[in-house]
Amino acid sequence: MTRLRVTLKEVASTAGVSYQTVSKVINKQAQVSKETEVRIWNAVRDLGYHPNFTARSLRAQRSFTIGYSWPPSPPDQTNPILDQFLQSMFMSAEERGYYMLSFPYHADPRKLLETYGALIHSGRVDGFVLSSIEYNDPRILLLLEKNFPFVAFGRSNPELIFPWIDVDGGQGIHAAVSHLLDNGHQKIAALAWPDTSRVGNNRMDGYFTAMNQAGITPDPAWIKRGEGRFSFGYKATCELFELPPNLRPTALIALNDSMAIGALQAAKDAGLKVGREFAIAGFDDTPMIQFLDPPLTSVRQPVWEVGQQIIPMLLTYIETGKPPEPISKIVSPRLIVRQSTSGQPLKPA
Amino acid sequence: MTRLRVTLKEVASTAGVSYQTVSKVINKQAQVSKETEVRIWNAVRDLGYHPNFTARSLRAQRSFTIGYSWPPSPPDQTNPILDQFLQSMFMSAEERGYYMLSFPYHADPRKLLETYGALIHSGRVDGFVLSSIEYNDPRILLLLEKNFPFVAFGRSNPELIFPWIDVDGGQGIHAAVSHLLDNGHQKIAALAWPDTSRVGNNRMDGYFTAMNQAGITPDPAWIKRGEGRFSFGYKATCELFELPPNLRPTALIALNDSMAIGALQAAKDAGLKVGREFAIAGFDDTPMIQFLDPPLTSVRQPVWEVGQQIIPMLLTYIETGKPPEPISKIVSPRLIVRQSTSGQPLKPA
Repeated sequence: MTRLRVTLKEVASTAGVSYQTVSKVINKQAQVSKETEVRIWNAVRDLGYHPNFTARSLRAQRSFTIGYSWPPSPPDQTNPILDQFLQSMFMSAEERGYYMLSFPYHADPRKLLETYGALIHSGRVDGFVLSSIEYNDPRILLLLEKNFPFVAFGRSNPELIFPWIDVDGGQGIHAAVSHLLDNGHQKIAALAWPDTSRVGNNRMDGYFTAMNQAGITPDPAWIKRGEGRFSFGYKATCELFELPPNLRPTALIALNDSMAIGALQAAKDAGLKVGREFAIAGFDDTPMIQFLDPPLTSVRQPVWEVGQQIIPMLLTYIETGKPPEPISKIVSPRLIVRQSTSGQPLKPA
Repeated sequence: MTRLRVTLKEVASTAGVSYQTVSKVINKQAQVSKETEVRIWNAVRDLGYHPNFTARSLRAQRSFTIGYSWPPSPPDQTNPILDQFLQSMFMSAEERGYYMLSFPYHADPRKLLETYGALIHSGRVDGFVLSSIEYNDPRILLLLEKNFPFVAFGRSNPELIFPWIDVDGGQGIHAAVSHLLDNGHQKIAALAWPDTSRVGNNRMDGYFTAMNQAGITPDPAWIKRGEGRFSFGYKATCELFELPPNLRPTALIALNDSMAIGALQAAKDAGLKVGREFAIAGFDDTPMIQFLDPPLTSVRQPVWEVGQQIIPMLLTYIETGKPPEPISKIVSPRLIVRQSTSGQPLKPA
C-alpha cells in the first residue's frame, strides 16, 4: 500500500526524543523543556503529521460515521429526491464532523439485516438514517431491539415509538384534491399503491378527507391500486375512461409522478386535452415534469429541509444516548400548480 | 452513548481469565489448556463479542473505506445516472469487504481539496472514486502529488497519467449523427457545452468525425454552445429556426437530454412535428424521456458496468500500492432510437 501517513515514530526520530514523549506533548500531558517542545512541534509541522483518525476513533469509541442505504430505483425511473436528500445530509453531517457511509440495499431482508448487524457490531457506524419505511419495518425492529441510534425519514405503525421525521403526504394530496375541487371537479379518481403501503395510506388519507369535506363519497371504481409505475398509470386511466359517463372521472390525482405521467399519456391517446378536458396531478415534483406537454401539477417535498433536520436529530441521539426531543417531526409539502390541472371539468355528455 | 459493544475485558471477566489471554486465544497466538480455550470461546459466543472494526483497522493501517463525492444536480434536473452508479459501486465494494464514504462536493475548490486532504490524513479512506472530471482537475493533481490511490470515471488532459474508466461519449454521438445521416439528414446542428468542457469535447469529436466521414463541413452557425440546461436548449433551437432556409438544420443532436428536451419544446412551439419534420437526439437516456411526446432518441451509458469495473480497479491500487493494469478502460455507450428521430428531413421550401 502507498505510504503517506507520517507516524508518531517518525516525528519522534526527527525530533530526537522518544515516541512516548511525542505522544505526551501532543496530548498536552507532558512536562518537557520549552526547547524539546519546540523541536517536537517543528517536526510535527515539517513532516506534516496528522493524528490518525482510526486511533482517535478507538479512543472515543465512536466512528463519527452515519450509515445509510436505500432501495435502488426501478430502471424506468429516477429517484426524484435522492441527490438532494443525500447532499443535504452530507452538508449537515460534515459541519458536525461526521461523514456518511453507504451500503447496498439487499432485496433479501435477511441479508439486509445482516449488513446492518455487521455495521453495528464492527463499530463502523454510530447510527443510521432509514428511509422507505414500511409497516413493521424489520430494520426498525432490529435497531429498537439493539437500542442502536437511528432516525427514520418516514413513519411506521403508530404503536412503534422511534425517532422520525416525515413529510405530511396526506396534507399534500389534500391540497391537490382541494385544488381540483376548487376548479369545479367532483368525480376525482386516485391512482394509489396497494393498501399495504404505509406511505400510500398516509397520502390517501388526504384524498378521503378532502372528498369527505366536500360532501363527496368517492365511488370505489375511482380508486385504482397497483405498482407505482408508468405502465400501471396508463392502464388504470384507460379503465377509468371506460366507466359509464355518469361515473367517469374528470380529474385524477396520482400518488407519484410516474403514475401521473402514465395517466397523461393515456388521456392524450384518448384524444383528451389534459388540463382543459381532463385534469391530472402527481406527487414528487420530479424536475423533468415541468417539461411535459402540458407541464404537470405535483406535490413537492421539502427534501433539503428533511436532510438538514434528520442529521442533528440523529447526532443528538448518538451523542447523548437518548432519542431527540421531540422524538418526531412533520414537515409540510407544497402543491406546485401547472397546466395539467388548469381547466374546468367538461359537462357530462 | 448507547452501550452495546461487548469488550474483550467483559469476555475475559466472564471466562475468568486475563484480558491478554483472551486476546491471544482470539488471535490464535496462545498456548492454553483446551478447557480454558473452550471457556473463552463460550464467553465470546454467549456475550456476542465481535472484534472491533476500528481496532482491526488500526492494525491493518487501512480503513476498508472508499471516498466519493459528486457535484449536486441543478434544481431543475435529476442526475440520470447517479443512483445506478452508486448502487453498482456499493455492491461491488461490499463483496470485497469495503464500504463507501460520501462527503459534500464544495463548490469552492479550496474547500473541496481541504476535505480530500483531511480524509487522506485522518486515514478515514483508503482511496477515492472521482467523477465529473475536467481539464487540469485539481483533485487529480492533488491525489497524484500525494500518490494516493484513486480511479476516475472520466478522462482529463491526455498528458496526465492516472487510472480511469470512461464511456466513449464520442462514439455515442457518432452513432447518433450517423443514424441521422442514414435517415437522410445533412444539415445537423449540435447543442454543446463551452469548449472548455472535457466531456463536451470528447462527445463533439464524434459529431465532427461523423460529419466529415459523410463529406459534410458543419456550418459554424449549426454549433451552439452554452449551459447544459433546458432553457439554453430552447433558446438555441429558436435561433437555429431563424437561419435562412438554405442553412436551416433539419435535425440536431444535444450533448445531454436537458438541452434536447428544450429543443423539443422549441420545435413544438414552432409548429413542427418532431420526428417527422425535425429530428432530435439527446444523451444520457434519462429514464423519463421515453414518456415525452414524442419519446426521445438518446445515448445510454453502461453505468452499472462502470460501477462494477471501477471498484476492482481501485482496490487493486489500494491493495498492491500500484495503479491497475491496464491503467485505463473505455466502455461503449448504446444509441436508443425512439420516435424523435424517426422521420425523413423535409425538402427545403
